[in-house]
Amino acid sequence: MHPAPFSAEASSTTFVTERTIEFIEHSASSDDPWMAWCSFPDPHHPLAPPEPWFSRHDPAEIELPSTFDDEGADWPLHITVIRGLEPEPGGQGQYVTPFGPTATQTQQAIAITYGMIEAIDDGIGKIMGALESTGELDNTIIVFTSDHGDMMGDHGLMLKGGMHFQGCLRVPMVIHTPGGLPARTDSLAASIDLPHTVLDLCGVAEFHGMQGVSLTPMIKDPQATVRTEVLIEDDFPIAEVLPLLPLKTRTLVTAQHRYTRDSSGHESLYDLVADPDELVNIAVDGRDPGALRDVVSSMVDAMMRADDLTRTSPVSP
Amino acid sequence: MHPAPFSAEASSTTFVTERTIEFIEHSASSDDPWMAWCSFPDPHHPLAPPEPWFSRHDPAEIELPSTFDDEGADWPLHITVIRGLEPEPGGQGQYVTPFGPTATQTQQAIAITYGMIEAIDDGIGKIMGALESTGELDNTIIVFTSDHGDMMGDHGLMLKGGMHFQGCLRVPMVIHTPGGLPARTDSLAASIDLPHTVLDLCGVAEFHGMQGVSLTPMIKDPQATVRTEVLIEDDFPIAEVLPLLPLKTRTLVTAQHRYTRDSSGHESLYDLVADPDELVNIAVDGRDPGALRDVVSSMVDAMMRADDLTRTSPVSP
Repeated sequence: MHPAPFSAEASSTTFVTERTIEFIEHSASSDDPWMAWCSFPDPHHPLAPPEPWFSRHDPAEIELPSTFDDEGADWPLHITVIRGLEPEPGGQGQYVTPFGPTATQTQQAIAITYGMIEAIDDGIGKIMGALESTGELDNTIIVFTSDHGDMMGDHGLMLKGGMHFQGCLRVPMVIHTPGGLPARTDSLAASIDLPHTVLDLCGVAEFHGMQGVSLTPMIKDPQATVRTEVLIEDDFPIAEVLPLLPLKTRTLVTAQHRYTRDSSGHESLYDLVADPDELVNIAVDGRDPGALRDVVSSMVDAMMRADDLTRTSPVSP
Repeated sequence: MHPAPFSAEASSTTFVTERTIEFIEHSASSDDPWMAWCSFPDPHHPLAPPEPWFSRHDPAEIELPSTFDDEGADWPLHITVIRGLEPEPGGQGQYVTPFGPTATQTQQAIAITYGMIEAIDDGIGKIMGALESTGELDNTIIVFTSDHGDMMGDHGLMLKGGMHFQGCLRVPMVIHTPGGLPARTDSLAASIDLPHTVLDLCGVAEFHGMQGVSLTPMIKDPQATVRTEVLIEDDFPIAEVLPLLPLKTRTLVTAQHRYTRDSSGHESLYDLVADPDELVNIAVDGRDPGALRDVVSSMVDAMMRADDLTRTSPVSP
């Protein structure tokens, strides 16, 4: 573990920040609408941001995740196997494939990741400053989100790979709309809802047959719900050469449960209300047959809805 | 109901037969491999083949289907509504959309359909004759099948439209291979297996990631099974203007059961062994919760398998 051998000015986070600010300043000088997709590679392995970000946090002061010592009962085989792996030896490749970290490795990884997150926070602060100074802030929708999480020591696991725990599935999602008031919601939302939401906020009609739902009701009222479940589809073509991994994994998250079924034949069901740490797989041994029956039926319905449909042209203007 | 106002020589069945024979005779004169796709439009509405086929059977002598008087308990709403419809009035459009026929209408429709089938039998006999006279028969794989069935009075229903009874789902499938012996199998097979089967019989490797399975084990041994279930996906974009029809319907057929679930929220389960006529929907009222639970889980697995996968290139030659 060592910092990147270049300065923070040369990091991808600084590069993305500066190019985004340039684009905003350029766009603000025109009357045309604009959209910026500002995609920071970090936080990501290799866990090697440049200083000062690398050393911002002392690993010894990092608290381990509450599920670090999860005994891993009733897991799919591949997750159990991954937990038994040590990190690959050597340099920047060291933390690149999933493994079961020691407590010390976990503290190091979290400390460095916190530093990377703070570097991004710093960049986003500068971008917000550019929006304000160009007068664009009151006329701009801002969405902050991520493509996936990382286990980062949750359940004694590092990184990702067919691990549908909350640590991998849940991502931050912050939506700022001009004039919107700060609020937080517990209602379900999915990344696939973002195109619909942005079109809705801009007053543009959806493309005929678009998947996803607009989150605008939740933006207006944090008590509103627009979904009863989120379907997560995870495919691993690499399973053809690493057959330990299931080729396909499907998860349904509802307000109460997380149900996961994979093409290797394993199923998991966790009660996110009674067991938010996902420690007891109630899909096994008939622990809750009623909940299991309901969530499997809901998964059929969600998969049917998510299935593409060859549609006619729009039937009304 | 009246015969087509043209001669049998001008019918689509004769046209397809003659063009197919021409193609076979032309192809036989070359050493190149060839494939003919011989697609007869009939049997199909309008129920109006030319004579002599129109009048080959006396409607009065046609036996009604055993399920004609099915009381239709626990059906999806749209099938119940269709059963209450009369045929659209007038001319060739009369039997074009699904409806609930009278006994007399059913006998007429079946009698005329039998005639259309015999016209096709006649054409296929001529095509087989051309294969024999050109010397191609012992070097040709022949597949006879159809795209779907028609209710034709089964369960008091005519034609099709989200009716996943055996009358619609089951199709003839006859495969002739050079040197193959006659046999019949009860094992499950699906149309999506045909590309795989033909490639297999020709000794050509499957395209990487092809759906379906080769039926050749069943061709060699009628006791062999290659599938535990068949998934049927049925989409109705027309549901956007005819909202009575479910937008999507999914059926899983196993050796014992037929389970159907649609996007309007209805589910049906029939025990094809104990109740081959599909008269008692055991998905309702907790009539067989164990069978229901198992088949819903199998449907998730089948839908997962049928879901397209973005694959890498083949990983081995």
